[in-house]
Amino acid sequence: MATAVSPLAPTRTPQLPAVEGVRLATAAAGIRYAGRTDVMLALFEPGTTVAGVFTRSKCPSAPVEWCRTLIKPGRARALVVNSGNANAFTGKNGRLATKRTADITAKALQCKPGEVFLASTGVIGEPLDARKFAGVMAGLAQTAQGEGWLDAAKAIMTTDTFPKLATATARLGKTSITINGIAKGAGMIAPDMATMLAFVFTDAPIAAPVLQALLKAGVVDTFNAVTIDGDTSTSDTLLVFASGAAARRGAPRIARASDPRLKAFRLAFQQVLANLAEQVARDGEGARKLVEVVVEGAVSKPSARRIALSIANSPLVKTAIAGEDANWGRVVMAVGKAGEPADRDRLSIWFGGIRVAHRGERDPAYDEAEVSAVMKKPEISLKVALGLGRGRDRVLTCDLTKEYVTINGDYRS
Amino acid sequence: MATAVSPLAPTRTPQLPAVEGVRLATAAAGIRYAGRTDVMLALFEPGTTVAGVFTRSKCPSAPVEWCRTLIKPGRARALVVNSGNANAFTGKNGRLATKRTADITAKALQCKPGEVFLASTGVIGEPLDARKFAGVMAGLAQTAQGEGWLDAAKAIMTTDTFPKLATATARLGKTSITINGIAKGAGMIAPDMATMLAFVFTDAPIAAPVLQALLKAGVVDTFNAVTIDGDTSTSDTLLVFASGAAARRGAPRIARASDPRLKAFRLAFQQVLANLAEQVARDGEGARKLVEVVVEGAVSKPSARRIALSIANSPLVKTAIAGEDANWGRVVMAVGKAGEPADRDRLSIWFGGIRVAHRGERDPAYDEAEVSAVMKKPEISLKVALGLGRGRDRVLTCDLTKEYVTINGDYRS
Repeated sequence: MATAVSPLAPTRTPQLPAVEGVRLATAAAGIRYAGRTDVMLALFEPGTTVAGVFTRSKCPSAPVEWCRTLIKPGRARALVVNSGNANAFTGKNGRLATKRTADITAKALQCKPGEVFLASTGVIGEPLDARKFAGVMAGLAQTAQGEGWLDAAKAIMTTDTFPKLATATARLGKTSITINGIAKGAGMIAPDMATMLAFVFTDAPIAAPVLQALLKAGVVDTFNAVTIDGDTSTSDTLLVFASGAAARRGAPRIARASDPRLKAFRLAFQQVLANLAEQVARDGEGARKLVEVVVEGAVSKPSARRIALSIANSPLVKTAIAGEDANWGRVVMAVGKAGEPADRDRLSIWFGGIRVAHRGERDPAYDEAEVSAVMKKPEISLKVALGLGRGRDRVLTCDLTKEYVTINGDYRS
Repeated sequence: MATAVSPLAPTRTPQLPAVEGVRLATAAAGIRYAGRTDVMLALFEPGTTVAGVFTRSKCPSAPVEWCRTLIKPGRARALVVNSGNANAFTGKNGRLATKRTADITAKALQCKPGEVFLASTGVIGEPLDARKFAGVMAGLAQTAQGEGWLDAAKAIMTTDTFPKLATATARLGKTSITINGIAKGAGMIAPDMATMLAFVFTDAPIAAPVLQALLKAGVVDTFNAVTIDGDTSTSDTLLVFASGAAARRGAPRIARASDPRLKAFRLAFQQVLANLAEQVARDGEGARKLVEVVVEGAVSKPSARRIALSIANSPLVKTAIAGEDANWGRVVMAVGKAGEPADRDRLSIWFGGIRVAHRGERDPAYDEAEVSAVMKKPEISLKVALGLGRGRDRVLTCDLTKEYVTINGDYRS
């Protein structure tokens, strides 16, 4: 397991202010780890709305199934997240564990189990003992407070090498509102798989269907545009909670997604999502390079997305970048295998702004030494122009290093 | 570049007999390598038919485009294959180089350029100098003979760690016919990508459309069921040549794919394709384990294939196998991300015949030590039963090792 902090980590951890109507607490429940927190509780004041998006896996974890059923009513009083055990592929016992955890939480907080959202990350296929939550729930409820965002972000980490936090403010009507977010990234938890969890909290008073619409639009170019290895966790979860507390300070209640007063909020919300998603890429397993893949001139944006993902997920492209090699031949290969319209003889490719291939052939003008210098940087931009249309897209990924294989293959040796 | 022979290589290289109507020769044309052969010429007697399948890449190499136009007429007098340069992403010059190579060959052999098939493998984006062929073609034509299959297989290697050959005989009517095949696998050629080339030769008199039908059916469970890293070369080419010479010994001419006399031929042909495809998997870059992925109980065979490929291409599954870890949680993940019908609570998973998960939960009966012993073997079978229908499929792959990253990322360092 890698312990050193990713070289791509942000240089400073942001300080998050309180979000009115949201209180936090963490505890060490001994689910799997020793000597660290592994449970995070967020408490929401009555009237809090919620929206969520989840893994597309056909074999989702029990908490994902639990949360999905609660998104429609869209009301939340609590969020309980644990690390150390994913409660995935645990059959009937898994469903039972989510029910019990919600019951324990609802009883301690005097709310309904259907207002308790759950997320779990960690080992898969191991039964999750819901009694662990019973032991810490009363204490969590008592100590919950408006501060403690860093502690919350740390409690949900698995093999993340740094906690992931982001914050933004915006005007809603004439009132300033806050948006905070925490995430855990594609870190491995032996002996199992990567999981991405992210939670966003705001005091803006936004109706649940509007929040869901904002979230659905917000993930397209943020969380859905990040890929580490193309593998999809059974547990990926992104929830947004809006306490509505800012209404007391005069913020207008938003009931329609088309409300023009949402403009600044939408932008700030998008920023928080983009910031968290980028941090996930920066903590990709074994990552030494953050790679931005831009595709333009495709026949459409979805076509550009598919080509960008084909490049970003190609093991041959990713290993070349790990080797600091501007291997445009492999980029052509990845464009070709995407199955999208592409004309080899119109393709141009840039690494770090330097054009290395033009109209289907090596660019005779490019300077190998200049490109080599670009490839040594920790952040690399790779651009492909297809010359067919106006479709453009961008995804983030990281390189594929021996460290990735070590993290994911060597832990038993 | 890896130089040691793959630990998964066959223990002996088969001796291939002559195929009547086919002559072979090799030469060192100095295209890229020093001190080895890099051009292979196969000469066919008049009346030879041909069939082919090619990469699905939207950015194919110039030789792939050249061959595609010649498959319809279906007549062949020569095959010229070079290693060291793929003639891919070389623009107009690439097309010109194929035309020139065919002209040079046609002139030396007194046939039409449209009867000359071409394949190139090696570095991408570098111009291929067709004059290199002019220097060796007369000598190749003069020295071509019925023996020399091992030399031919060696001349087309790039970073393959062993030459790949297979042979079979079958009865066509009352006449014995021969099927020989050679292949090169997913070996890297710095600084570029993997390419799979395979060529099959027979003396059976089979019309081109029948040969094409046999080939199309034959690749489904052989070459199309092998995956190394999910990447698709711009140059993948599989050609079959039938000289028809066995007709002189009484073999019936086959003009319809439904001809019942094809039964034995079809089986032997399939065996040669399966044998070559497996050798390609055994020489996967950095491979230490040959992995068979079997999916059964899917809603259909295509659904089983997509799930099997999702497992076989998952970096997390492949690194787990490299780490000798029977990590069924990652297999569940790969099933879930395939997007095909699957019910988590009906899934069962076996490694090497030992059931490790049953009906959506860890199988309480399995013995960790027993599974560990299975995972240490060089050949591992991974089976998933979905419990939904009767769809079944099988693909071959290999593990993902640090050596893969080294081969594909470190060659410039």
